[in-house]
This record gives sequence, C-alpha cells and structure tokens, in this order.
Amino acid sequence: PTFRIAAIPGDGIGKEVMPEGLRVLHAAAKRFGLALDVREIPWASCDWHAQHGQMMPDDWKEQLSGVDAIFFGAVGWPATVPDHVSLWGSLLKFRRQFDQYINLRPVRLFEGVPCPLAGRKPGDIDYLVVRENTEGEYTALGGVMYEGTDREIVIQESVFSRHGADRVLRFAFEAARSRPRKHLTLATKSNGIAISMPWWDGRADAVGRDFPDVSLDKQHIDILSARFVLQPQRFDVVVASNLFGDILSDLGPATTGTIGLAPSANLNPERKFPSLFEPVHGSAPDIYGKNIANPIAMIWSGALMLDFLTEGQGAGRAAHDAIVKAIETVLAQGPRTPDLGGNASTTALGQAIAGLVEAG
Amino acid sequence: PTFRIAAIPGDGIGKEVMPEGLRVLHAAAKRFGLALDVREIPWASCDWHAQHGQMMPDDWKEQLSGVDAIFFGAVGWPATVPDHVSLWGSLLKFRRQFDQYINLRPVRLFEGVPCPLAGRKPGDIDYLVVRENTEGEYTALGGVMYEGTDREIVIQESVFSRHGADRVLRFAFEAARSRPRKHLTLATKSNGIAISMPWWDGRADAVGRDFPDVSLDKQHIDILSARFVLQPQRFDVVVASNLFGDILSDLGPATTGTIGLAPSANLNPERKFPSLFEPVHGSAPDIYGKNIANPIAMIWSGALMLDFLTEGQGAGRAAHDAIVKAIETVLAQGPRTPDLGGNASTTALGQAIAGLVEAG
Ligand SMILES: CC(C)[C@H](C(=O)O)[C@@H](O)C(=O)O
Ligand SMILES: CC(C)[C@H](C(=O)O)[C@@H](O)C(=O)O
Repeated sequence: PTFRIAAIPGDGIGKEVMPEGLRVLHAAAKRFGLALDVREIPWASCDWHAQHGQMMPDDWKEQLSGVDAIFFGAVGWPATVPDHVSLWGSLLKFRRQFDQYINLRPVRLFEGVPCPLAGRKPGDIDYLVVRENTEGEYTALGGVMYEGTDREIVIQESVFSRHGADRVLRFAFEAARSRPRKHLTLATKSNGIAISMPWWDGRADAVGRDFPDVSLDKQHIDILSARFVLQPQRFDVVVASNLFGDILSDLGPATTGTIGLAPSANLNPERKFPSLFEPVHGSAPDIYGKNIANPIAMIWSGALMLDFLTEGQGAGRAAHDAIVKAIETVLAQGPRTPDLGGNASTTALGQAIAGLVEAG
Repeated sequence: PTFRIAAIPGDGIGKEVMPEGLRVLHAAAKRFGLALDVREIPWASCDWHAQHGQMMPDDWKEQLSGVDAIFFGAVGWPATVPDHVSLWGSLLKFRRQFDQYINLRPVRLFEGVPCPLAGRKPGDIDYLVVRENTEGEYTALGGVMYEGTDREIVIQESVFSRHGADRVLRFAFEAARSRPRKHLTLATKSNGIAISMPWWDGRADAVGRDFPDVSLDKQHIDILSARFVLQPQRFDVVVASNLFGDILSDLGPATTGTIGLAPSANLNPERKFPSLFEPVHGSAPDIYGKNIANPIAMIWSGALMLDFLTEGQGAGRAAHDAIVKAIETVLAQGPRTPDLGGNASTTALGQAIAGLVEAG
C-alpha cells in the first residue's frame, strides 16, 4: 500500500527540522520498499494564520480525509499569535478531534550524549511515558466570577471519563506486559486532588485486574518527579493524566540530556483517524533561522510513524530500527548540533542520518 | 517574650526527626537567649486517630489558641489510615484554617552533598520556591456522574481567587526584590489549562506593575521542570500554584541530592494564626523504626521558625544563621546518615548539629 502522509512543518524550528525528518523518511522508505505519498501543508501561525486569521481552513478535516498520518513539526509564534490560539487551533484540535488518545513518549539515555545526571550510563534511563491525550486538565471549562473586582474567583474544571482513563490504562498495562520488567507506575496525587485522583487510583486497580503479571506502583506526582532525577532506573512504563504526562515527558527527556531528542506519537490505535507524530520540543523562536536546531526528535518521530503505519508488517519495523540505529551512531560519533556541544547544522545532521540509513 | 510552640511529631519518621529538631531548637534558644515554651501533641494516624477515629480532637483550634507556631514532623500511615484522611484531617487543615497561604521552600546545594546533577557545585543551585498554599488544585469539589457505568465521568474543580493569587504573587515579588538577582519565575500552563492559567499570567502582570525592578519570566510547568534539571542557575525566586509548587518543591530538592534536607515554612504572614514549619519529606513508613532518617530538614525548618517568630529582632535571625551554619559544617564534614552515604543515626546527626550550635 501507499501511505499518505500530511507533513505540517508549523512555525519556527518546525520549518527547519521537518526537511530533515522527511529526508530520513524518504531514505528509509527507499531502502525498505515502503511507498510514501507526502503532502506538505502550511497550516501555521506564520503562514495560514497570517493570511486567514485562523490556524487552519474550516474544511481541514475534509482536506485530511484519506491521510494515514500527520507528520508534525511544531506550532507557536507568540510574537504574532498567542500560544493558546495557535495550539487549540492546531495541535490540540488534532489530538481531540482525531481521538489520538495515546501520547507515547519514550525516554532513553544514549551513548555519546552527556547525561545531566551524575554517573548515569546508557541503560540506566530507559522508560516509556504513556500520556492520556484527549481530556483531563486541559479544558476551557469554568470561568471567572466577580470579574475585575477584589472578590474575583476562578473555577477551572478538569474532566475525566472512565472510557478515557480505562483505554489509556489498558494500553499502558499492555505496553508494560510486552517489556521484560513488566512494571507500571501510575502518576497520581490522590492525597491532594481529592476527587479525580483517588478515582484514577481506583480505575488503575480495576483495569489492573486483567494484568496480574504486571506490577503496579502508584506514586504521587511530586515524589515521582523527584525520582525521575534520583532513581530513574526504577521506571519501566509510566502512565499519567494529560497534565502529569506533559510534565513527566519534558522532565524525563531533560534527564537524558536534551529535549531536542525526544519524539512522540499521538495515536488513535483503532486507526479510525490519522495519528500524529511530532517532536516533544516546541517551535523555539529564539533559535529559529540559524539552522542549529537538533532534528533528531523529528527524525525519531518519523521512525515511530513508519512503525505504527505498517503494524504487523516487517518493513516498517525494520525501517524504524534502522533509523534508531543511525541516530545511535550519530549520537555516539557525531556530527553534533550545538545543544550537544557540537557545531554541526540541522541539515548536516539530517544528511548524516539519512546517509547511514541508506548505507544500511 | 516567650514563644509558645506546639510540636506535632506525627507518624513514622516524624517521630524520629522531631526529637532532633527540638534538641537543636533548645540549644539555639539557650545560646541566643530566646525563651521557648514547647508542648508536644500526639495528633497522628497512629496516636490520636488510632484511639479516637479522627486525626485531631474537635476542639483542636481552641487547644492551639495562643500558640505562636506549630513545629510539625509528618503525618501519614497508609497501612491504617488512607492518606487523604490523614492529610485533610491534619496538615491540609492547618494550612487552610490557619490561612498559611505562603509555603516557602528554599532549594540549595550544599558543600559535601553529592549532587545528582553532573558538574554542579554549591552556588549553582540556590533558589526559593514560593508556593500558594490554601487554594487552587487541591479541592474536594466536583463529583462523579453516571457512577459505576461505562459512561462514568468525573469533574474535578480547581478554585483560585484574586485575593489568593495576588497575595502570594506580592510576597514572591517582595522576596525577589530582596535578593541580589531580583528575578521571578512564574509557573504557568496557559497553553493547555485554558481558564485558570491565562488568568494567573494576567495577575502576575498586574501585581508586577508595582515591582518594575524585578524581572518576571513566565514558564510552562513542563519546560520549567526540565530546566530545574538542565539550567538550575537560571532560577532565583519561583512562584507557583498549590499543585505546581508541590511538584517543583520536591523536584528542586531532589536535584540537590536528597529531599531529606528540604525544609518548609507554611506562613500566615499577618500572624493572625500560628504558622507551621515542617520538613518537605513525609512519614516514610519504609524506613521508620531504624533511626536512620536524616533530621536535617526538620532542624532547618526549626531555624526558619525561629527567624519568623522573632522578625525584626536580632536573636532569631542569629539563631537561624547559627543552625544553618552548623548544618553546613555537618554536611561538609560528617557525620552522615545513610541517604547521604554514611552510617550515622538520626540521633547522632541531631547531637552533632546541636553541639556545633552550642559551641558557637
Ligand atoms: C504545546 C503544549 C500545548 C503541549 C502540551 O502541553 O500538550 C506540549 O507541551 C506537548 O507536550 O505536546
Ligand atoms: C502530603 C501532601 C498532601 C503534601 C502536599 O501535596 O502539599 C506534601 O506533598 C507537601 O508538599 O507538603
């Protein structure tokens, strides 16, 4: 089959890492005999929004019909479009309307990347954050009362559903089951957030009954964050609500040296809608235009995309593994972008990785 | 004046670190001529709750009337009392009913403490987390609908007030103003949590107008957590909501080696109600009974208490400084508890620090 991919570079360094992501995708597709049909789409603050006053056209869903996956750079250009407008008009809309309820974020320390944690070596940090991606703390529900007066109060609502929690918990238990250690950590805060978090604890227990072979450990988000720094080897799979998953999946990658490496997959596992693959980093306006952004998170996200697209088929997994191996080689031997102490360009990294993938 | 102090050891290692906290307090009081009247109170899961089925007597407020400060170990004994019961029946009740709206948590890397962050030395990590302590994400408001069915949904409400946000922001701006770097970081997540967090951003701007000499930087909680690991030297004073402050004030201390050192002050700055001083760590049932808990967080919390009690008076500040100096000496030279790689007991550490404070 031909896989149809919508490539949305977005803003800032999204525009710089996307070409390298595509370069490596095409190299892998060629080598492993995958047919990709890639269309670039300029839905971003500085493109579509600048011309039309909104992040995407009204018929964005129709335009994406038949697309298998979205390869996404980063949106955000606060100088002209407030972040909540650019994000709710694009990334967060995709996640919700395409029901991409799993956000998968692997965290791994690579050889050749100086670790900000003292004395840790590759193998000591290797876990997977599974984040609920469609509900929870991210809402525009609630409001302001006594507005503009000294009595002003603000209500912010979080909304969780059994449907939403159970499916991400089940996915995380399955992921833990497929790994050697079979260990799952639930991020909670049931000692403080008194309605939703005790309820999450209960759902984890309920879903866990189907997974007696997986050990479940509930940890409050405060001490869990501390342990990402103090005892990273404790973790195998970590499952978390939208907000807690957001925090943990920036913190985890930070402990492995740079968030410039961290990839993510926003999955609709049923494949009813396209899934979306993007680096964890944002558009980074401060370093845009210099061709110094690290493209590895984008490239790795592409590898996750090929693997997901061809599930059950050898070629996508092989392409994924070849890309990850090329990333490992480049991290160990260079070239390196400035975030990792080198002075190679974004382009040079993409070329090096594509070259390794082609050479096999 | 004589300062009246209620000492509540609580559960687990709270019972072990409290005697050392008191030992050092008395040593400092003696040396600096402060009169302390300390009463020990057994309000804990394993004491009062075991006998009476609740964490404190109904007349707890009356019993504490006239008390200037609460010196608090830690509560929590999940084997017999669920955490949300022990905490909402004790610590969180004090914070709210005594309007201790400032939770101050200094984060500092000491000489002699191995830093989990590679290549950091004392001076690289030295900031203050100012946490809102009475409202926000910690509520029991909301509920469950379609309970027990597949359609189950849960609403969890966060409640903020202008009164509550402005006073902690003002306190944090003042704190930043009094420090050489005059820099304040606000933890936000206005790109995802769409009602309360943009509102927090706005309140910070509004209050900040009175502090043109303080630089204000708003950072999303995800990247802010990452930067606690990657660029700790960026931070001076950090102000945060109840939940974000909770996370940051475990994460920050973790980056300095152990949460066994981190003290906190729960302040009612107007002194209408007693303030409460406690270690950031909890009751740690897993290490209780071995006399190996690190008492430094408790002892340092006592120093913060003396400083607060005697505001504007030389003796309390001098006592505070002497205790912190003794802590520095012990951390640099030993003895050390097991969390810092030594094998000294809780008692031995308390004795060593008290000895140094007495000797001057
Ligand atoms: C940009 C922002 C809305 C987003 C999030 O919080 O989900 C980002 O931080 C992420 O982790 O993908
Ligand atoms: C025990 C818990 C309720 C408490 C909190 O979350 O406030 C603790 O973690 C703290 O930081 O003091």
